[in-house]
Amino acid sequence: MQLGVVGLGRMGANIVRRLHRAGHNCVVYDRDPKPGEALARDGAVNVGDLKEMVAKLEAPRAIWIMLPAGEITETTLADLAAMMSPGDTLIDGGNAFWKDDVRRGRELEAKGLHYLDIGTSGGVHGLDRGYCLMIGGDKATFDRLEPIFQALAPGKGGIEPTKHREGRNPTAEQGYLHCGPAGAGHFVKMIHNGIEYGMMQAFAEGFDLLRNASAKDGLPEEYGFDFDVAEIAEVWRRGSVVTSWLLDLTAEALAADEELGAYSGHVSDSGEGRWTVQAAIETATPAEVLTSSLYTRFRSRKDHTFAEKILSAMRAGFGGHVEPKKQG
Amino acid sequence: MQLGVVGLGRMGANIVRRLHRAGHNCVVYDRDPKPGEALARDGAVNVGDLKEMVAKLEAPRAIWIMLPAGEITETTLADLAAMMSPGDTLIDGGNAFWKDDVRRGRELEAKGLHYLDIGTSGGVHGLDRGYCLMIGGDKATFDRLEPIFQALAPGKGGIEPTKHREGRNPTAEQGYLHCGPAGAGHFVKMIHNGIEYGMMQAFAEGFDLLRNASAKDGLPEEYGFDFDVAEIAEVWRRGSVVTSWLLDLTAEALAADEELGAYSGHVSDSGEGRWTVQAAIETATPAEVLTSSLYTRFRSRKDHTFAEKILSAMRAGFGGHVEPKKQG
Amino acid sequence: MQLGVVGLGRMGANIVRRLHRAGHNCVVYDRDPKPGEALARDGAVNVGDLKEMVAKLEAPRAIWIMLPAGEITETTLADLAAMMSPGDTLIDGGNAFWKDDVRRGRELEAKGLHYLDIGTSGGVHGLDRGYCLMIGGDKATFDRLEPIFQALAPGKGGIEPTKHREGRNPTAEQGYLHCGPAGAGHFVKMIHNGIEYGMMQAFAEGFDLLRNASAKDGLPEEYGFDFDVAEIAEVWRRGSVVTSWLLDLTAEALAADEELGAYSGHVSDSGEGRWTVQAAIETATPAEVLTSSLYTRFRSRKDHTFAEKILSAMRAGFGGHVEPKKQG
Amino acid sequence: MQLGVVGLGRMGANIVRRLHRAGHNCVVYDRDPKPGEALARDGAVNVGDLKEMVAKLEAPRAIWIMLPAGEITETTLADLAAMMSPGDTLIDGGNAFWKDDVRRGRELEAKGLHYLDIGTSGGVHGLDRGYCLMIGGDKATFDRLEPIFQALAPGKGGIEPTKHREGRNPTAEQGYLHCGPAGAGHFVKMIHNGIEYGMMQAFAEGFDLLRNASAKDGLPEEYGFDFDVAEIAEVWRRGSVVTSWLLDLTAEALAADEELGAYSGHVSDSGEGRWTVQAAIETATPAEVLTSSLYTRFRSRKDHTFAEKILSAMRAGFGGHVEPKKQG
Repeated sequence: MQLGVVGLGRMGANIVRRLHRAGHNCVVYDRDPKPGEALARDGAVNVGDLKEMVAKLEAPRAIWIMLPAGEITETTLADLAAMMSPGDTLIDGGNAFWKDDVRRGRELEAKGLHYLDIGTSGGVHGLDRGYCLMIGGDKATFDRLEPIFQALAPGKGGIEPTKHREGRNPTAEQGYLHCGPAGAGHFVKMIHNGIEYGMMQAFAEGFDLLRNASAKDGLPEEYGFDFDVAEIAEVWRRGSVVTSWLLDLTAEALAADEELGAYSGHVSDSGEGRWTVQAAIETATPAEVLTSSLYTRFRSRKDHTFAEKILSAMRAGFGGHVEPKKQG
Repeated sequence: MQLGVVGLGRMGANIVRRLHRAGHNCVVYDRDPKPGEALARDGAVNVGDLKEMVAKLEAPRAIWIMLPAGEITETTLADLAAMMSPGDTLIDGGNAFWKDDVRRGRELEAKGLHYLDIGTSGGVHGLDRGYCLMIGGDKATFDRLEPIFQALAPGKGGIEPTKHREGRNPTAEQGYLHCGPAGAGHFVKMIHNGIEYGMMQAFAEGFDLLRNASAKDGLPEEYGFDFDVAEIAEVWRRGSVVTSWLLDLTAEALAADEELGAYSGHVSDSGEGRWTVQAAIETATPAEVLTSSLYTRFRSRKDHTFAEKILSAMRAGFGGHVEPKKQG
Repeated sequence: MQLGVVGLGRMGANIVRRLHRAGHNCVVYDRDPKPGEALARDGAVNVGDLKEMVAKLEAPRAIWIMLPAGEITETTLADLAAMMSPGDTLIDGGNAFWKDDVRRGRELEAKGLHYLDIGTSGGVHGLDRGYCLMIGGDKATFDRLEPIFQALAPGKGGIEPTKHREGRNPTAEQGYLHCGPAGAGHFVKMIHNGIEYGMMQAFAEGFDLLRNASAKDGLPEEYGFDFDVAEIAEVWRRGSVVTSWLLDLTAEALAADEELGAYSGHVSDSGEGRWTVQAAIETATPAEVLTSSLYTRFRSRKDHTFAEKILSAMRAGFGGHVEPKKQG
Repeated sequence: MQLGVVGLGRMGANIVRRLHRAGHNCVVYDRDPKPGEALARDGAVNVGDLKEMVAKLEAPRAIWIMLPAGEITETTLADLAAMMSPGDTLIDGGNAFWKDDVRRGRELEAKGLHYLDIGTSGGVHGLDRGYCLMIGGDKATFDRLEPIFQALAPGKGGIEPTKHREGRNPTAEQGYLHCGPAGAGHFVKMIHNGIEYGMMQAFAEGFDLLRNASAKDGLPEEYGFDFDVAEIAEVWRRGSVVTSWLLDLTAEALAADEELGAYSGHVSDSGEGRWTVQAAIETATPAEVLTSSLYTRFRSRKDHTFAEKILSAMRAGFGGHVEPKKQG
């Protein structure tokens, strides 16, 4: 099939490459001409602007936008919508807020255009392993573009089949799924990332405990450990209940440097973690773990909070407790 | 009444003073002779060692130990128990772990001695306001020493009586209570402190939010605040639902310096907060808020956790995300 | 001064009564004519519709709307704005979302009208104790209406003055405060309620622990307590660190029935708790305690969560653990 | 090698079977003669009491105890220790509290006996997949018994090797590890289970959100989803960041019944989750996620908490809010 791809950062470029490997044809564009020129050497049609892209695609067109969520995605969608024809499809494969997808789906539908929102997971390894695709939008459009999703998804691979799935939707086993109407794809991806935050934090706390339990002093006398966290991560990779890709990655990082000395401890967060908490509030779902995982990241980026100073001030007030004062 | 008091730090000395004001007589001892000499000028009998204290007290004796929890309290109790006579009473007014009280109560009872464990709240203000006393041990011993407790407790004061209390135990309204057998006093004090942690953290988070909502940039455009947290703390002292002593103390600290610039943000924790979590585990009681309040303090004392570095390492592993690296 | 009041539920009616006691004159309206008729007997001018209210007030007018947040408040504000004249003031004293205030302030300013958003705390006791008022909007309008706020606020009362306040804003000590531009009043009230949630949850967990520690069996052997939670709440009211109005209310409820047998355990939540978490996310402020307090309420309203069933299903999957199955 | 195995429940019996498959010889005992008789048919030597077991084993003996943690394990260890000879080894492969291992290691060492504590993960699937073994005790004893561990562990299998492991301990890649002195094995297993709790809760909250976002009413208007959680679990198994064994198990359970209708929602917890929190407290490690995961299980086993009733009582007190009352 023919697909337009706008935004040729690492993710966008790798999507093009994976599609080409599967025999699809991509028309590509990026503000920076270099990545498109590189992809052209592999057979992509590199164009100079959006207008040229629309011209180069045969109707009904499908254009996949892979840009940072926000302003740039919105304007690109609007610009393309103005040039495209009824029956054409716009796809946002970035990390949009799902309510924006709901809105866009309605706006584009009013113009006779189709819209798909696709959450993709797989990161830097997706080119080789394939991307897990969570797709929202109308089902007929999903069906029409299914060859694209088949090519991008990991496929069944060597993974053991899940029992009790006789008669169920076969696409999930290939690694792509139509999740529901516009917004459903990014909603499912958002929850995926929320779970990812929680799993990461579970491992992080566990390894922190192992390290702190290896402290030389200040602990109850039974503690006399000197745990090798790299070896522990490795042993858990075989036969334990916590086997997971995140554990594999942790084992690799710890094998390279058990101290993780290159990292300062500042941890960024992205929109998905925050939107997950918002969804918890809106649906009245207790989500302690997903929320704590986000708050840990907020805290990691501060030297100290005003909250902590308030605690010290109260302690001085009622008990005369003297906390370590600021130097200087 | 006559009371022996061992340990003349701020709390111990103030207890002696408050008892003297009420007409009781104290025999006092501390390893450091100075505080005892000062109290002697106010009428206390200052002695040079525990043996002399026991000798100076008339049977049935009562000795109140006000020392740091742990080793020193244990040995002092053991030393005194060896010198005292059946029918005498030992009191631990410090911050002991309640299970130690259960054990001590049994050990001393086997020797014919009585034991009371008393949790005291009131801090540096107790000399004038009185101490809230939570008392464990046998009821008859509590009854015999009640004049001591009456003198130390705040009394009814100007506080509005609680409705529906007709026919209830009048001592609670005076600020002292027999809570149950040995251990009950420190258990109730432990829970008191657990609640205190939670209330403090609630205020701390609230004021932190007000400060962060006053940031000059990086916030959604509706934020354009410049809150005066000292004034907000003050206005809440009148008629609001959060009126409390802790708010009074916060208002005072913020009035002195709205930035709380003297505090580094390191917050200590004491045994009670930790034992509260242990009790939550032992009784299978979900105690999110009390536990989070403790964890916040743990976190406040670290520059960064290994947990946070694990998160960064995973993010680099699956997404190639580059966190700010450590300098140098 | 003259004030229009729209919405004569318990809060609205009590505000009118408190203003009348202080010599102010209110023109009142409610869709239900009865509360207005009752207030008319105390001297209020009861009108039949909003148009009549506007007519009965002398310019520059001030109208206080005290209606449930949402649709009804929005339409009432819009209807009044259409009838009022430049220089007039609209006040929302309900529990609006602060971003709605920011928007309204801009819209009304464009029409030459003033807008104040007022968060009020004090609940059913406000008529007698006075209301704590947190006020947003332009300062000149606040200044002009200050006599109204003085009459509604609790005043200095018998509360001990806060140290270090020399030279500070005197209104906070009276119980009312101009907090900043439109939205600031409800923002501060929102944070107040967030803190309230946290304090409530701290007490709730503490008393839950005392109850569970009094269980007859299933506990480690040191537990042999039978705590009287009503007495413990009462004793903490005197001299302890957790003294607070919320403790007073808890002591009263427990004195009436230590089992709290009338309550099912379902706990509602209002917008403020949810918006507080939203503000935590938007300002990247870790707010574990305020958030947990909200999630506890979510959980209290469910028999069981799907989350719990997922846990059981996993346990069966890896360990063959058999959880208690559903009956029937 | 020859190994004695005491306790022939599912885990103990499967360990014997897996050892026999690898050519080792087991002398087995259980109070219930039946499982031993069954194993005897596969070549095990089934004995009638502990004395006979000791007699049947050649020195230096090694006996693996696989009994429920607590009393029965303690007395069996003591009984065997009394019969065994210097140089012999006792192994606890159950779920002991790690501080018990520290104590036992010292006690047995004083008698010239060796002690290993082994945490095993793998559950009902371990017979075929192998068991992940976390081992504490003296290194020489570990070395001597290594053939046993090799046989029980999963081995390298088809799992992709971890980068950067050149020159590292090869046993971790086989699925067994000497973690440190006595106690280290069960400590590492305890942390493993703590992480397991956190990961499970992350998935549980995520799927709960997907279900609640599919509610037919009561949600903001953008929500119009009807998510098929079985398909979503399946699609995440391929290429996503949350791929893990726990996800595989969840996908299987949801494929069988998307409603999980067989489960009541009551979730048990075992010692490891509780001990993990205790270790967090003792090492001053913030462990929000691991702790919340435990508290969720506590809460799942209650209809309502006293905490929730306290909240309702306060709300009635300050706001006159009427919560749904208990029926009848």
